[in-house]
Amino acid sequence: MPLNRRQESLVRSLYTRHGRKKTGCCVAEGVRCCSEVFRSVPELVEFTLLAPEAKVDFELSGEVIDVASGQLGSLGGTVSSQGILTVLRRPSGAEGKPDAPFIPVLDQVGDPGNFGTVVRTAKAAGLDELWYTAGSVDPYSDKVVRSALGAQFSMRLREFADLEAARTAAAGFGYGGFFITDPHRGENCYTTGDLFAGSLVVIGSEANGVDPGVPGRRVTIPMPGGFESLNAAQAATIFIFEFVRRKYMKAGTEGGLNG
Amino acid sequence: MPLNRRQESLVRSLYTRHGRKKTGCCVAEGVRCCSEVFRSVPELVEFTLLAPEAKVDFELSGEVIDVASGQLGSLGGTVSSQGILTVLRRPSGAEGKPDAPFIPVLDQVGDPGNFGTVVRTAKAAGLDELWYTAGSVDPYSDKVVRSALGAQFSMRLREFADLEAARTAAAGFGYGGFFITDPHRGENCYTTGDLFAGSLVVIGSEANGVDPGVPGRRVTIPMPGGFESLNAAQAATIFIFEFVRRKYMKAGTEGGLNG
Repeated sequence: MPLNRRQESLVRSLYTRHGRKKTGCCVAEGVRCCSEVFRSVPELVEFTLLAPEAKVDFELSGEVIDVASGQLGSLGGTVSSQGILTVLRRPSGAEGKPDAPFIPVLDQVGDPGNFGTVVRTAKAAGLDELWYTAGSVDPYSDKVVRSALGAQFSMRLREFADLEAARTAAAGFGYGGFFITDPHRGENCYTTGDLFAGSLVVIGSEANGVDPGVPGRRVTIPMPGGFESLNAAQAATIFIFEFVRRKYMKAGTEGGLNG
Repeated sequence: MPLNRRQESLVRSLYTRHGRKKTGCCVAEGVRCCSEVFRSVPELVEFTLLAPEAKVDFELSGEVIDVASGQLGSLGGTVSSQGILTVLRRPSGAEGKPDAPFIPVLDQVGDPGNFGTVVRTAKAAGLDELWYTAGSVDPYSDKVVRSALGAQFSMRLREFADLEAARTAAAGFGYGGFFITDPHRGENCYTTGDLFAGSLVVIGSEANGVDPGVPGRRVTIPMPGGFESLNAAQAATIFIFEFVRRKYMKAGTEGGLNG
């Protein structure tokens, strides 16, 4: 059936933070993102817009609305949607005790590409829990969803007013470690033994980093080149995969590797 | 003095590959990029356009042309130039024997953000040599320069027709190892002992990866989450900083860390 006015208006509204908040929905665009949505959270799907050019190799559930070739671009997305767009309900915030050995915390990370990349990287590392503070980009904005390839839909995300609120919540769950990544000073991330032992690891925004006034153990990545600093998502990736490396080195096995 | 017609036309042309090739010049925009240019390669600077809003805390050399507030945006750059734009000559390609322990090779990486991020990350890791194959984005395009924060100007970049040409050149320099990063199969990157011992480490483009027909030792990053694959720049970052980690662990010291 064709796209009706109400649906078209809903889709358009989901490219704004206000629209997502008001409707409780968000969009996933592109084959890889939508595939991830149908694989991990099919119960959240409202409807899907499908153009003839879409190369879909997975099963769609829910209402499927055929649209004209190129029509999706005019609805609000700025880049190629590859002919598929799914509207789904936003997951509700996670609750209860996390079971991750450590939790990455994004502090006021406003760049959608950086936020999404960290989500995708955390998911690839086998982490299911990720926290962030107010002032960060909306994790369910179209740009963050695209950048994360939809990884946020199968993760437990929690928002806190600030780092102090995150620290208090973590302590209540028995997470006592509180590390703040810093481009310039602190303990060497490669030799800090308890970095991932029931802890939060805070990553700041690229422009400002984490407020120097926030108490916590500073931890840094050695940078032999001395070149400014790393992009926030690159720093987060190094921390997250240092966790993976230790896990595999400790196990003393290559089992579980892909391929 | 004001911007003359010839200069304006030159700046506009540098946002195209053709224009950069024809003139042998390129642009750096923004405070951090331009600062890096004046720090590392002042001898390449042709002239600088400066608007009143620019917050410049470094010394400019060469011809400085005052422009009106907001004028830079109309010249071709799509994002905020922060009121400063420097035109400089492209560095000539590197020659002679590299002295890096290993060389990252970008194979047909077309995304400017990914290419630039890898350049910036390699520079932060203390690597000065980076190779790439034809089919990659131009390393001196405005977008790559912005994404790398100008790190390419103080690095030795070399372009090869394809991976075979890179391998042959490397062998001539005594680099015998040839590793191909693969999202799905291969040796564990954390336990491959000779990964950085006189070797090339090839990173493919995100969409296609490296042609499976290319011979070489496949090496992979363990991904416990089993989520698709990492972004190309994230994978490259993990390899590059695994090199840094080994260097610091081997040295058994934290000396040389920032701060």
